[in-house]
Amino acid sequence: MRAGPSQEEIRRHNLGALLRHVHLSGPTSRAELTSRMGLNRSTIMALTADLTAAGLVREELPRETGRAGRPSLVVRPESARVYVFALDVGVDRLVAARVGLGGAVLDRRETARRRGPFSLEETVGPLAAFARQMHRRTRPDTVCVGVAAAFAGGVAQGDGIVRFGPNMGAADVPFGEEMARRLALGLPVAVGNDANLAAMAEHLRGVGVGCRDLVYLHGDVGVGGGVIAGGTLLGGHQGFGGEVGHMVVNPEGRRCGCGSRGCLEAEVGERALLEAAGRFGSQIGREAVRAVVSAADRGDVVAQAALSRVGDWLGLGVANLVNVFNPEMVVFGGMLREVYLGSAAQVRSRLNLDALPASRERLRLRTTALGDDATLVGAAELAFAQVLADPLEVLARAGS
Amino acid sequence: MRAGPSQEEIRRHNLGALLRHVHLSGPTSRAELTSRMGLNRSTIMALTADLTAAGLVREELPRETGRAGRPSLVVRPESARVYVFALDVGVDRLVAARVGLGGAVLDRRETARRRGPFSLEETVGPLAAFARQMHRRTRPDTVCVGVAAAFAGGVAQGDGIVRFGPNMGAADVPFGEEMARRLALGLPVAVGNDANLAAMAEHLRGVGVGCRDLVYLHGDVGVGGGVIAGGTLLGGHQGFGGEVGHMVVNPEGRRCGCGSRGCLEAEVGERALLEAAGRFGSQIGREAVRAVVSAADRGDVVAQAALSRVGDWLGLGVANLVNVFNPEMVVFGGMLREVYLGSAAQVRSRLNLDALPASRERLRLRTTALGDDATLVGAAELAFAQVLADPLEVLARAGS
Repeated sequence: MRAGPSQEEIRRHNLGALLRHVHLSGPTSRAELTSRMGLNRSTIMALTADLTAAGLVREELPRETGRAGRPSLVVRPESARVYVFALDVGVDRLVAARVGLGGAVLDRRETARRRGPFSLEETVGPLAAFARQMHRRTRPDTVCVGVAAAFAGGVAQGDGIVRFGPNMGAADVPFGEEMARRLALGLPVAVGNDANLAAMAEHLRGVGVGCRDLVYLHGDVGVGGGVIAGGTLLGGHQGFGGEVGHMVVNPEGRRCGCGSRGCLEAEVGERALLEAAGRFGSQIGREAVRAVVSAADRGDVVAQAALSRVGDWLGLGVANLVNVFNPEMVVFGGMLREVYLGSAAQVRSRLNLDALPASRERLRLRTTALGDDATLVGAAELAFAQVLADPLEVLARAGS
Repeated sequence: MRAGPSQEEIRRHNLGALLRHVHLSGPTSRAELTSRMGLNRSTIMALTADLTAAGLVREELPRETGRAGRPSLVVRPESARVYVFALDVGVDRLVAARVGLGGAVLDRRETARRRGPFSLEETVGPLAAFARQMHRRTRPDTVCVGVAAAFAGGVAQGDGIVRFGPNMGAADVPFGEEMARRLALGLPVAVGNDANLAAMAEHLRGVGVGCRDLVYLHGDVGVGGGVIAGGTLLGGHQGFGGEVGHMVVNPEGRRCGCGSRGCLEAEVGERALLEAAGRFGSQIGREAVRAVVSAADRGDVVAQAALSRVGDWLGLGVANLVNVFNPEMVVFGGMLREVYLGSAAQVRSRLNLDALPASRERLRLRTTALGDDATLVGAAELAFAQVLADPLEVLARAGS
């Protein structure tokens, strides 16, 4: 049980709420902030003044108003000055980006990752080098307020330790700590599961904006998921919530990397599709998946049967998630985007069979709006979380 | 985005928080409230004075302190004066109870319900009669602050309309509205899904106290579930979240009442167990389930095989939920309590096979602490929700 907040806590809450608003919605007039936040004009002015003094926002006249009278000043995030580093450790690639307040990617580096055993050094090394390169190119008056990484594996809440990553061979890796040491920015590195962060990204900036109950399904070698329930990311007791790829849909089915049988991942992941299409081994990755979908489009019956089989299991998995979560939207990302687009009728038909009518009648099925950068965008939002929760405190610690 | 609260909102929040504390934890000394709520003594005194004046709590000297010096006054909920009606529409019974602030059942009426098609009149009629009988027996200075019902079916958020109840034949029944009309207490009747309310009850007053991530599984004719995620009940977009009984675990499996095949409900519900034990038709209900478990205990190989089969599917269902939710605890209620106790080894063995090690290593499997009254206790908590959110407002409306 928590008691109500003090005046100072309310001020900090409001500073964060205002900053969060311009961060997510972009430049906003004082008049609109007044109405959206339900505060009076003088409070908005005072909050804006504090954030301006801290160098987090600036106020300017709008370009054109089209209205008579004195225009309301527009509050704009200091995107060029305040930034975070967002990192993405995927199965096939490593990405580092410098992302400005407001969400713009200011700079970006990427390298391919060879599939195979996970090496901490081969992961942390290139990412740290990318961050240093980008850091050197920043102007002296810029300030880094956070660092976060998306990781294709299970990440324990709080400590940035990767507990499992069956498709990368990672287990109990102190990734966050080592990354922070190598970056030497004096900032901790928050780490999140890739699909969880992608779900958050689609919820905040993608196809799921305004949608408080959303399931994001990501496919690559593995299948991961992220669940937004009532506007909040489902973490679970230790942070491993949302591992929907290891929901068993076919107890008599294919062996899964986790040791079980018939997991959603085993039935709809990259390997399941390529094997069903008789193409496993010759090609791998997204291109190989796209090749199956376009072969099916051209009438290749083997490819069509493969997509139909995988789409059927995908539909069953989605039906289970619809019954369990009653989401407003299910979003397909990674190779599942291609699979869904190539087998939407099959997915829908299975869904109609296995999902409760009341739970599916308002359901929307969508593909990712942010594409493969959903995880990176999610990592940036995780990195911004602290400064949005308590802007002045974080800025003070960042030494500006 | 919401702005921070006003002083008056903080006061109301604190009044609710204090009342909630004594409601859930029982009589509490001012000193302990001061430390638990993180407020100073004078604030606690003022809040307690307001709640005392409203007749919601009273202060008294503790029976014995065992310490020297002036003892801290104990704040006690006015359990005999402030109450709610809690209703339970189960498959086999109808229950109405008068529950005092603090959670004590002050009065209670119950009648058996014949399984079969749902009749609004045959449900609302007896419950309204029970409530009237109990109401007549209250003292003149008592006040009813809420009414809520648990219903064995899917209930749409907010409007109390039962959208589906495949095991009771209910569909689109305006149960809350009709119940409120018949009670004529001038109060709305909140309605919740029975398993969702039971989950909340176990979280607040049962085996899951202090546990913020919990899955409750209830079995009768049907199998329902309630999920507490991060301390909050998972509702989903329309309120149908947690229908884990319709998660397909065996696509080649038994037909389910929902029209699908191999749902958890179809594989582990009452009928699945009784049919596997060759006992379907002769007996039904909890007694029949108990008879199978005790036959297995006595060495009946058919009963043992039936429990083993059902325990295996139950273990698979639990494994899926563990991977999806990463809960701290799974609680078995209804006939699933008996099934779990009779097949715990099977459930554990399947769990070890299909649940991710990181997600299950801290998992606790437990049986309900509240038994068949979990739904009723949950309904009472739903009925108290308003007065705990804003004590003075609700009391003013109740006309005290």
